[in-house]
Amino acid sequence: MKDDCIAAFAPATVANVGAGFDILGFALHQPGDEVVARFNDSHRVVLTRITGDGGKLPLQTELNTAGVAVMKLLEHLNLRKGIDLEVHKKMPLGSGLGSSAASAVAAVVAVNALIGSPLKKIELLPFALEGERMACGAAHADNAAPSLLGGFILIRSYTPLDIVQLETPERLHAVVVHPHIEVKTKDAREILKKSLLLKDAIVQWGNIAGLVAGLMKSDYDLISRSLNDVIVEPVRSILIPGFNAVKAAALCEGALGCSISGSGPSVFALTTEASIAQRVADAMQKVFAEQGVASNAFISKINSEGAYVVPSSTYAAL
Amino acid sequence: MKDDCIAAFAPATVANVGAGFDILGFALHQPGDEVVARFNDSHRVVLTRITGDGGKLPLQTELNTAGVAVMKLLEHLNLRKGIDLEVHKKMPLGSGLGSSAASAVAAVVAVNALIGSPLKKIELLPFALEGERMACGAAHADNAAPSLLGGFILIRSYTPLDIVQLETPERLHAVVVHPHIEVKTKDAREILKKSLLLKDAIVQWGNIAGLVAGLMKSDYDLISRSLNDVIVEPVRSILIPGFNAVKAAALCEGALGCSISGSGPSVFALTTEASIAQRVADAMQKVFAEQGVASNAFISKINSEGAYVVPSSTYAAL
Repeated sequence: MKDDCIAAFAPATVANVGAGFDILGFALHQPGDEVVARFNDSHRVVLTRITGDGGKLPLQTELNTAGVAVMKLLEHLNLRKGIDLEVHKKMPLGSGLGSSAASAVAAVVAVNALIGSPLKKIELLPFALEGERMACGAAHADNAAPSLLGGFILIRSYTPLDIVQLETPERLHAVVVHPHIEVKTKDAREILKKSLLLKDAIVQWGNIAGLVAGLMKSDYDLISRSLNDVIVEPVRSILIPGFNAVKAAALCEGALGCSISGSGPSVFALTTEASIAQRVADAMQKVFAEQGVASNAFISKINSEGAYVVPSSTYAAL
Repeated sequence: MKDDCIAAFAPATVANVGAGFDILGFALHQPGDEVVARFNDSHRVVLTRITGDGGKLPLQTELNTAGVAVMKLLEHLNLRKGIDLEVHKKMPLGSGLGSSAASAVAAVVAVNALIGSPLKKIELLPFALEGERMACGAAHADNAAPSLLGGFILIRSYTPLDIVQLETPERLHAVVVHPHIEVKTKDAREILKKSLLLKDAIVQWGNIAGLVAGLMKSDYDLISRSLNDVIVEPVRSILIPGFNAVKAAALCEGALGCSISGSGPSVFALTTEASIAQRVADAMQKVFAEQGVASNAFISKINSEGAYVVPSSTYAAL
């Protein structure tokens, strides 16, 4: 690898995490996206190649989440560098695993390293969010922030943006099952009611407060009791065939809890052990199969590091 | 004091604590209520005396929060003991400081000790809540639980009841200013809207999650940023003359945050030091005075112990 060429990896993420609609997310180890950045002789950001997207993503810089994020970063730094970007999608698109966020995060991490790391990691978040805004119509940080920083991340506030890193209980393992159906983020948003009952909101904020306390205390029972979304899951789950049976199977096999990952269709579960995670994943996939829905499963401890620059030796294999 | 006579103290509490409507409360050291319990020769629970209430509270056992709590406790234990109760109110009634909860908690703590402590402290909560149910029409635990157990208490769920003890940051001091006006709990509940916008709910659960994280981390800045209630305070504050100016004065003097204590009219603030707490209290009282409203102020560290049996030597002075 030449010195003027840097690759970065950014992991998939699970947003919402039960009761934390729009304010909570965590990072997986795998899957994730890789972005390679190198200087070019123009003064423009050029997307030279996208792999793994089945031809679905646009190569125009200003329509691509990675391209937009890098343009905003360079604008902020007032740098007129020409940079080529290669985006290697290594996770399913439109799956509810923060695919667009991962590409944007990997892109800004790679480019920041390429130009001599003028910004700290957390300072890159606003630019990754600009990529998200282009892709989703709004700058939801609950995928981009954990993909960048790792662990469980609370978005305490959006105006102003206030990011809080929570503790990651050592034993937690995540299962994510991605059924091969399409749920558009836009549809998953529009299906939500614009208002809710105060009595339901009280249940929800009891659960999000309990989940945060459970994470901070590594209290797995409390995490389990708190993984309960009474507002969003009941509405969005109708877009996922067999969701209730999939969730029941996960809980039956010992999952601490199970809900929709982001806007779906992926479904996540948390467990305390890798062996339980495998049984939970198998049970969830079996139920999807019974619905005639193919799926794939990812099992991962919680990723506490987030996005990183890929060492050159590893990169050589790309 | 004779062995068959026990006194217990239960502290005043601040419920809601900004964004934690119905799910969060903390205990003060002072003020609080004391209840004296002794055996009598009947098989009945008899309220022999109430002091400090200005004659406002009923002496009929089944209409008094302390009486009901003790009757429910004895029923549960299937004990047909005769017990006399004296209730010494040492805090203002109807102030938003959990007065009815404190009497019920002190009563069950005293009686449990009197009958040989068959139950652990936390096991007394359901009976104190029965007292609350009679007094308020609903068994809200956000005063009774912190009065009994001390510290910051999260009511993760009401069905089933799920009580979580949070951390108490060492430097926290509470200021409570009680303006001498009346706000009925029932009115303060009825004024609330039955529904809310999802976008406001998201702000609220970001803040309650942030507050819990701030308490667990002893992160005073995060506590300060999270002490923000966009749902209940804007509605209830119209019942408190000069509330916005009182809050502004508290923040101006260095309070971490300021909001309504329980259903009001008391207003609380949190600070990091006793000296700041005193300045905050003075400023808040000054603003109330400018509105022509008399008030009194309480300054207290957070009480981490909660209700306790009063040692006999102290009790002799009652």
